[in-house]
Amino acid sequence: MILKINSSDNGTIKHVRELKKRKYRQKYEEYIVEGIRIIRDALQNNKEIKYILFAEELYTTSGGEELLHELMENNIKIYEIPNNIYMHLSDTQNPQGIMAVLPIESYHIDEVIDSSKNLFLVLDRVQDPGNLGTIIRTADAAGINAVILTKGCVDLYNLKTIRSTMGSIFHFPIVHGGETIEIIKHLKSKNIKIVSTSLETDKYYDEVDYNESTAFVIGNEANGVLKEVLESSDELVKIPMIGKAESLNASIAASIIMYEAVRQKRNQKI
Amino acid sequence: MILKINSSDNGTIKHVRELKKRKYRQKYEEYIVEGIRIIRDALQNNKEIKYILFAEELYTTSGGEELLHELMENNIKIYEIPNNIYMHLSDTQNPQGIMAVLPIESYHIDEVIDSSKNLFLVLDRVQDPGNLGTIIRTADAAGINAVILTKGCVDLYNLKTIRSTMGSIFHFPIVHGGETIEIIKHLKSKNIKIVSTSLETDKYYDEVDYNESTAFVIGNEANGVLKEVLESSDELVKIPMIGKAESLNASIAASIIMYEAVRQKRNQKI
Repeated sequence: MILKINSSDNGTIKHVRELKKRKYRQKYEEYIVEGIRIIRDALQNNKEIKYILFAEELYTTSGGEELLHELMENNIKIYEIPNNIYMHLSDTQNPQGIMAVLPIESYHIDEVIDSSKNLFLVLDRVQDPGNLGTIIRTADAAGINAVILTKGCVDLYNLKTIRSTMGSIFHFPIVHGGETIEIIKHLKSKNIKIVSTSLETDKYYDEVDYNESTAFVIGNEANGVLKEVLESSDELVKIPMIGKAESLNASIAASIIMYEAVRQKRNQKI
Repeated sequence: MILKINSSDNGTIKHVRELKKRKYRQKYEEYIVEGIRIIRDALQNNKEIKYILFAEELYTTSGGEELLHELMENNIKIYEIPNNIYMHLSDTQNPQGIMAVLPIESYHIDEVIDSSKNLFLVLDRVQDPGNLGTIIRTADAAGINAVILTKGCVDLYNLKTIRSTMGSIFHFPIVHGGETIEIIKHLKSKNIKIVSTSLETDKYYDEVDYNESTAFVIGNEANGVLKEVLESSDELVKIPMIGKAESLNASIAASIIMYEAVRQKRNQKI
């Protein structure tokens, strides 16, 4: 069933407008995803969808009507809102005319880690929303088992971050952890090898064996990994810089290291 | 010598405002870079600086006054403009109070390629300004000898692209090429191996030998590498997707492949 909303003063519209701010996402434990592809991805991964907002615009978007039918078959609450109200709510440049409100899922770190041959990624105060999303997308591609965000990371539910994940937010557990050092101690107690990136080491990222349970720690864009975390790490690794660039973007560095682990695991199988 | 400009109607201010648009950058063959670090990088790499605009704000930025002195010692024309005019011209969220106007350099493809053991990167209609800048930064780090942009790439001199290069735009030649297929034919005629990324191949990126002269072709974010370019390539390679992600961001894919070449070259030396 589709319910119509005609006024921007409607309570649901006001609520969704609030969810564009971190403060309210935390208060209500809800967030917004926007666009056909990511909503389809949420459905396919059996994620709870609280409700949908769509505008007439959706009918002119390829796959839009089909998705609407699928949502109706799943008995999801759907609101149709005027195009102009939708455009004000939307965070994208070319809105497809559909957004969904989802509950924030929370995992405890112990639900997602074990000491079998798994790979984890710890993000130590990563600040750029696009970087965070791209790292999550690549972590998914690389078969990382869980991503752990430390206190001080940019909000995962930031609209830009969600967009950059390209749906990977639904594909594996993402834990909201506490202080980085506490997370590291916890992982170490589970016999997980801690590998941190650092500029002050002689060891290259491809000189460490990733065929045992490993957690990669990627640091803040400006300041890198916290000193006390570096001191608690089992290995410090760097990426060779051949040309004149001083550093790599955090999402690039994370990706190169995660894919080295993929390469090692593939070569071991052959 | 520092010249003062007080009015936003001043011809230089109007000109710089125009340079924020691609049309005028192409017309005047000039572009803007902003911030202390990148201007310092331009100086260190002996790039011609046509003139500098700065505002009082610069004096409160760490390293600002020092850079100003260095620019004066290099006899570069410097204009001081009011803070409010600077803020209107600026493209950054936290302006440091200094920007430079530089001439666009152009290289012919034959100036930058040879068939010695070199690595090249061809970007086939890459559309996202941030991706383009990040790829150039990583290409620099990976020791790529030159980057060739095809017709249809986003403008290299876009302010966001320049920012994302983190100065790497000054570190190696970047060629503005024509149609992708013509560039590929040209590179092939110089005995350079063409390696394109494709989803429709069984070969992984780490199964090709990059210890001979190689050009990597990275495709458009939505559509990948052009079909006719794929057909003319010596090797098609893909990156393994272990999890549920459908694809990687173009800058991530480019970086993983470039760093595999770095890894192979380092291992060969050992």
